[in-house]
Amino acid sequence: MHDDTNTTDARPTDQSADPSTTEPPDEYDRLVGEFGADPLTDDQRDRFPDAPPLIRRGRAYAGRDLDRFLAAAEAGERVSVVTGVGPSGPMHLGHVVAFSLARYLQASFDAHVLVPLSDDEKYCTREQTLAETRAYTRENLRDVLGFGFDPDLTTVVVDTADADVLYPLATALAKDVTPATYEAVYGAAENVGASFYPAMQAAHLLLPQFVDGPHPTTVPIAVDQDPHVRLARDLAAKERFPVTKPGALLAKFLPALSGPGKMNSSDDAPRIDLTADRETVREVLMEHAYSGGRDSLDAHREHGGDPAVDVAFQYLRAVFEPDDSVLGRLDREYRSGELLTGELKDHAVDRIATFLEAHQSRRPSDDALDDALEPYRLTDAERERALAAVGLGPGVRPV
Amino acid sequence: MHDDTNTTDARPTDQSADPSTTEPPDEYDRLVGEFGADPLTDDQRDRFPDAPPLIRRGRAYAGRDLDRFLAAAEAGERVSVVTGVGPSGPMHLGHVVAFSLARYLQASFDAHVLVPLSDDEKYCTREQTLAETRAYTRENLRDVLGFGFDPDLTTVVVDTADADVLYPLATALAKDVTPATYEAVYGAAENVGASFYPAMQAAHLLLPQFVDGPHPTTVPIAVDQDPHVRLARDLAAKERFPVTKPGALLAKFLPALSGPGKMNSSDDAPRIDLTADRETVREVLMEHAYSGGRDSLDAHREHGGDPAVDVAFQYLRAVFEPDDSVLGRLDREYRSGELLTGELKDHAVDRIATFLEAHQSRRPSDDALDDALEPYRLTDAERERALAAVGLGPGVRPV
Repeated sequence: MHDDTNTTDARPTDQSADPSTTEPPDEYDRLVGEFGADPLTDDQRDRFPDAPPLIRRGRAYAGRDLDRFLAAAEAGERVSVVTGVGPSGPMHLGHVVAFSLARYLQASFDAHVLVPLSDDEKYCTREQTLAETRAYTRENLRDVLGFGFDPDLTTVVVDTADADVLYPLATALAKDVTPATYEAVYGAAENVGASFYPAMQAAHLLLPQFVDGPHPTTVPIAVDQDPHVRLARDLAAKERFPVTKPGALLAKFLPALSGPGKMNSSDDAPRIDLTADRETVREVLMEHAYSGGRDSLDAHREHGGDPAVDVAFQYLRAVFEPDDSVLGRLDREYRSGELLTGELKDHAVDRIATFLEAHQSRRPSDDALDDALEPYRLTDAERERALAAVGLGPGVRPV
Repeated sequence: MHDDTNTTDARPTDQSADPSTTEPPDEYDRLVGEFGADPLTDDQRDRFPDAPPLIRRGRAYAGRDLDRFLAAAEAGERVSVVTGVGPSGPMHLGHVVAFSLARYLQASFDAHVLVPLSDDEKYCTREQTLAETRAYTRENLRDVLGFGFDPDLTTVVVDTADADVLYPLATALAKDVTPATYEAVYGAAENVGASFYPAMQAAHLLLPQFVDGPHPTTVPIAVDQDPHVRLARDLAAKERFPVTKPGALLAKFLPALSGPGKMNSSDDAPRIDLTADRETVREVLMEHAYSGGRDSLDAHREHGGDPAVDVAFQYLRAVFEPDDSVLGRLDREYRSGELLTGELKDHAVDRIATFLEAHQSRRPSDDALDDALEPYRLTDAERERALAAVGLGPGVRPV
């Protein structure tokens, strides 16, 4: 259950392309209403320069405090974006939503991006040892770097490896997280490591401000994780520390390969990892992607397909086909029956594989990881500033 | 409530000389029976060379796995002792019991001593900021060094300052600590920082073995804290990591200044801090120490006093008058009425003040603390070994 409730992972396995719960569209409206977030307005959408498909086609569809974020970004002031990953397996297409939003905000607004890897939480809530978790962490870190973030504007932290600063920050916040609050957000805790995690997660969301002072921060996440942003917002509102409430940019999940409304049956459900080669992308899409086409060629030619439920089309629409005229043509030709399912999938294979090849070309080898990661680590000065922000000055510090 | 339930503090405010709950003697037997610890045998007592008053006069009165500890110590093998302090105020005479036992075990057996300071727990369970907690931590660290531990055989850790290693170790253990286990030992948790603390505490008790491999460890503590040792023992028994169960040397509290069986009324109850000068020791003992003497001089001369309830006598007996012949004389003369309460207190003032003057002569100034502490910090190699023991190898590590 924890997998669905991991805020800073924008991510997971269960909310994405593959093994995943996909909510029907009107469910998204309900969630926004229930959580009290604000639907994205046309005005807000227009303020994102050269908005990527995720924003202009409505997959990122609601937010919290986006006006404050946009105003600061437009004024050239410091803004931050936090999006993480929980290392319990390979990263896959489902992760692309939040990470490409973060990458876009960095490119457009010089937003500082923080990527936390919650290995502590994954270890405590999954059947995996710390050594296994560390191995996933290294795999995931290579993919994080593969997204091509600017090292001058990006920080990557790993909960156990950056505990010198993250644990004191989480402790600072933990005092205001009651067990009742935990249960309201996460349900019953499996163990005290899981209980503690909301404090660590809030430390992630507030870390940019602990390091560099109060400034607008946004968290691009799948909408079901909004409660965790709210928890961090509640903690910021206590004004115990010099931080303001983090905002959010809420997105709908990519549909599961098995189609809209399908539940994830297992971690072994087919998916497209970020390391997949072109042939694998083809095999998985051809074999597993739910099609909006008709059962027979004749029926398809006569009645046409339904792009609204076609997973390949939805992936193209969400992320992988940025050209509106191309997407429009695919939509028309699929509906008319002119474009067959296999042809539509061919197009998706090409776009996705091309995206992944670029990603993989930036992805460091395991041997190169530690050096590649170095420019993304917190500096000693940043660690000291963050600790000072919660009242832990220098002296009596780690060797 | 947390104050009474803080394992690695051998310590606290509420179990000691001063503000304190003092259990009547037969209560101690009940606790040992209830907890399933073993009363110290004469054979065991004889195996402590030049045993200090705390051991030979029965204040340290029970244990867990002491034979294993003693056998290893006698064979010149590695043994460790863990005793900590929770920084929520100045250290005082109550802390002397556990710390002087640790110092004795180091001097007699070359035991490695680990002193953890649980600033995270104190911050989360007391009305104190992290900055205030850090200030108490520095004060307490100066006192820890004042006990004169051998830097080659002693490690001092501070939970927030050594979180780079302590948080991953605590997380490793936290997976096996359920909320139900927490409640059985500590009662309802105030917040998720408090919930997590048992895992951190277990990390303290197992740290010597995480760093240097499985070996006998003992924890000299006030008997009411035995449940926390048992929690760490249960975690060690899971054999998830290469550690054996830590043992314990259970001690009775020093009586409160207000006398046996009295409850602590507040943190402001009179007490003798380790920084008290001779005049302060005199004032506090004379004014506040419960006397076993009679109400009038004549009655005292005629009927004599009762050393068993006299706090000054009990402090001498427990720690501060090592000479059995002197203590025997004080006992006889007090019972006979020959020795007056004021005279008995004079003797206690002298012994305690002399002890504290030696302590204070070793206690570094705040300015000198960071340098003085350096030889007691974990080395980088020790940190790496401890992390490797739970499956976190090098790479992806703090800068």
